[in-house]
Amino acid sequence: MNTDTAILQEELLQFLREDQVSTNETILTNHSKDESYHEGSLPDLVVFPESAEEISKIIKVADASGTPVIPFGLGSSLEGHVIAYDKGITIDFSSMNKVTEVRDKDFLVKVQPGVTRSQLNKALKKHGLFFSVDPGADATLGGMAATNASGTTSVKYGVMKDQVQDLEVVLPNGEIIHTGSLARKSSSGYDLTSLYVGSEGTLGCITELTLRVYGIPEHVMAARASFPTIDHAVEAVISMLQAGVPVARVELLDESSIRRVNQFNGTDYIEKATLFLEFHGNEAGLQEDVAFMEEIVKNHDCEVIHFEKDNAARMKLWEARHNLAYAYIHGSPGKKMMVTDVCVPISELAGAIRHGREKIAELNLESGILGHVGDGNYHALLMIDMENEEELKKAEKFNEEIVEYALARGGTCTGEHGVGKGKMKYQKREHGKALPVMEAIKASIDPKGIMNPGKLVQSERRNNQ
Amino acid sequence: MNTDTAILQEELLQFLREDQVSTNETILTNHSKDESYHEGSLPDLVVFPESAEEISKIIKVADASGTPVIPFGLGSSLEGHVIAYDKGITIDFSSMNKVTEVRDKDFLVKVQPGVTRSQLNKALKKHGLFFSVDPGADATLGGMAATNASGTTSVKYGVMKDQVQDLEVVLPNGEIIHTGSLARKSSSGYDLTSLYVGSEGTLGCITELTLRVYGIPEHVMAARASFPTIDHAVEAVISMLQAGVPVARVELLDESSIRRVNQFNGTDYIEKATLFLEFHGNEAGLQEDVAFMEEIVKNHDCEVIHFEKDNAARMKLWEARHNLAYAYIHGSPGKKMMVTDVCVPISELAGAIRHGREKIAELNLESGILGHVGDGNYHALLMIDMENEEELKKAEKFNEEIVEYALARGGTCTGEHGVGKGKMKYQKREHGKALPVMEAIKASIDPKGIMNPGKLVQSERRNNQ
Repeated sequence: MNTDTAILQEELLQFLREDQVSTNETILTNHSKDESYHEGSLPDLVVFPESAEEISKIIKVADASGTPVIPFGLGSSLEGHVIAYDKGITIDFSSMNKVTEVRDKDFLVKVQPGVTRSQLNKALKKHGLFFSVDPGADATLGGMAATNASGTTSVKYGVMKDQVQDLEVVLPNGEIIHTGSLARKSSSGYDLTSLYVGSEGTLGCITELTLRVYGIPEHVMAARASFPTIDHAVEAVISMLQAGVPVARVELLDESSIRRVNQFNGTDYIEKATLFLEFHGNEAGLQEDVAFMEEIVKNHDCEVIHFEKDNAARMKLWEARHNLAYAYIHGSPGKKMMVTDVCVPISELAGAIRHGREKIAELNLESGILGHVGDGNYHALLMIDMENEEELKKAEKFNEEIVEYALARGGTCTGEHGVGKGKMKYQKREHGKALPVMEAIKASIDPKGIMNPGKLVQSERRNNQ
Repeated sequence: MNTDTAILQEELLQFLREDQVSTNETILTNHSKDESYHEGSLPDLVVFPESAEEISKIIKVADASGTPVIPFGLGSSLEGHVIAYDKGITIDFSSMNKVTEVRDKDFLVKVQPGVTRSQLNKALKKHGLFFSVDPGADATLGGMAATNASGTTSVKYGVMKDQVQDLEVVLPNGEIIHTGSLARKSSSGYDLTSLYVGSEGTLGCITELTLRVYGIPEHVMAARASFPTIDHAVEAVISMLQAGVPVARVELLDESSIRRVNQFNGTDYIEKATLFLEFHGNEAGLQEDVAFMEEIVKNHDCEVIHFEKDNAARMKLWEARHNLAYAYIHGSPGKKMMVTDVCVPISELAGAIRHGREKIAELNLESGILGHVGDGNYHALLMIDMENEEELKKAEKFNEEIVEYALARGGTCTGEHGVGKGKMKYQKREHGKALPVMEAIKASIDPKGIMNPGKLVQSERRNNQ
């Protein structure tokens, strides 16, 4: 431990207990990386605060010494968001994992940032409520807000940004603010809530979230629809959206992904390009929606529609979808995962996936294509041997090619995973003259650039290095 | 015309035609005020640009001389947003009123800022699409984005912020940026779109909007439900929301408002506290939803439910609702209108309206209570004799009291009308330490404070005066 770290530690121990401040090698290593192929880097210290007030004090210490601060949920991010590239203090939220208030009449819930999505849903169930956003990982809600995460239900319920009503945030100067209110809508002041959602810890540290929740739907119907090719499946989704069929979930899995699902979960789903579908509503309305969907998928040569009638089979279906990245990781031991994440306008989706498939075929890598196709967002999943520099290079080139394709058609380089370190190189291409506006906002709120440096936007701190 | 104005005019005429630059007294007067009780103030000049490039040049001229720039749609705002308190150049968008692209497959439309909501819906109809946000006024979409407007449908479709996918904005330095993309979701960069929606022209000038649109619903059912008291009506709405009845519209009108509606529109609606309701969906689902609604309103002593079966009667119902403010203005010649606009969590709505009614009864002014009750947003409408200082004072005191009541219960001082000049005094109370963050953002994007000064946040320019 160097002198600066020892001084920092001493300052932190003025108000934190010994077990709340760690320089233990294993702890540092566990906080040095995320779930992606991005190379890790150790922080100087990991702290385990228990309140916004403690985080305020930690950030004041960091501010005084110009030390980087990296908020860390569960490390399930995919673009290096939590990696301590410039060292510094990593804030672990595992001791801030309480659902603090369920306001069932307002369809709102208050949670600490370390609560995971499945933990929240467990707490909500007895109130007849659920939280909609479901990325693959059982991520923390703080992390999900920080990256504007989404998942299988966003086609109906929206993304993280649509669910966050208020945030308590510790600013880079240690002040504690609220970005919103409990009112469902507001035209008062600039929308700081939406600014902080997706800001990836670069403008402050989220210490409490007020989230919108929904009544558990009266009736739910899930189905798997298998198609002769992935093209047929994508075209079926586009037709459904055009026709206004109100799907709650519509997920695409290619043949390779279904094979991984079967291997990992012991299921026997037909190994062809498949849509996982779900509908929510009242009984009569649902029947009409499902009949309409059946008609459309059949028009697109759907070969089999299998309805998941009982609750257990339905749960299994979505668990299999959520675990898909882990199924790939499990099936390719020793390799690291790169997941692309472009999102395009729906009218460009079929072309984008066709382009992606052509390019992926040239790579000769373990790979799959899957996506939240109702949003125009698809992922190519590539398994890389990190010892093999050529593999990494060609995977990166592929990622660039599909980003370029998406941006040329009005799309975005990241639909839901965020910028982190990995997508910074595309920010100028995507945002053009809007990027200096983002940098100006960063500089105005975090003038020393201590908050999660090296992610999302350049800051003064790193410019001066 | 003073020398400075003459110089400005000369500079503007370098790239604008004579008919695009006006110092005509009548034109200046028409651009000096909005639809509210706020006192007007004349700009130096009104310009009528036809493109983003022209607006960029106008703003560069303003930037060079530190001249205020005030974007002006139709002047239907209610908190003094378009009043030229510091003089300067008012930008009128009436020559930028084209629907530039309908991307029906993407459920997106591109419009210039001067397009009105009814003009847009007329253009969308032949595509089977509609735009959801419907404030009372037939406002321009640029103005609606600038104030984060909403209306009768936001309980189902959301507010303006939920519809804006991308904005073209001219920055205070004249640069032209895009804040978003055509992709339905994105986690790339800070969310400048949400920052600009609701920023009331204080961070730049919107020159094009890309908006989300919806398929015209397969089936629509509208109804009027009359209750013995306003309390009964509010409690019925709360029960409907709790039970998850998927209303598309639910508007409250008190007895006085129904009376005004009948006078202004020649209708014969029952003059009691009433809910205007609408449901959208497929035929079978709709019947089930409406039956559920009927059951709930009857449990709350609903006296009559009248279904508006044909399209014409349904259109008349919503037209009557939209014209309600004009009905009051028409019915009180010579008086000015103050509209309050608090929004509270649904669990606090019944109490808030009860408090508002008690306070309003003490005023002895022409008044009514109405609201987008599904969002927890209600308006008290007061007609004021501006010659009578006491009337204005007591109306302002009432406004303060209900804002205070809302803020103490987690609400907001404005649900949809915006801050403008009128609600600036509540910003510190509502946002606390978040207000300096807003001011820092303002200063970083508009360092000279030329964009719509004196609205929403304080800027350097005015601090130095």
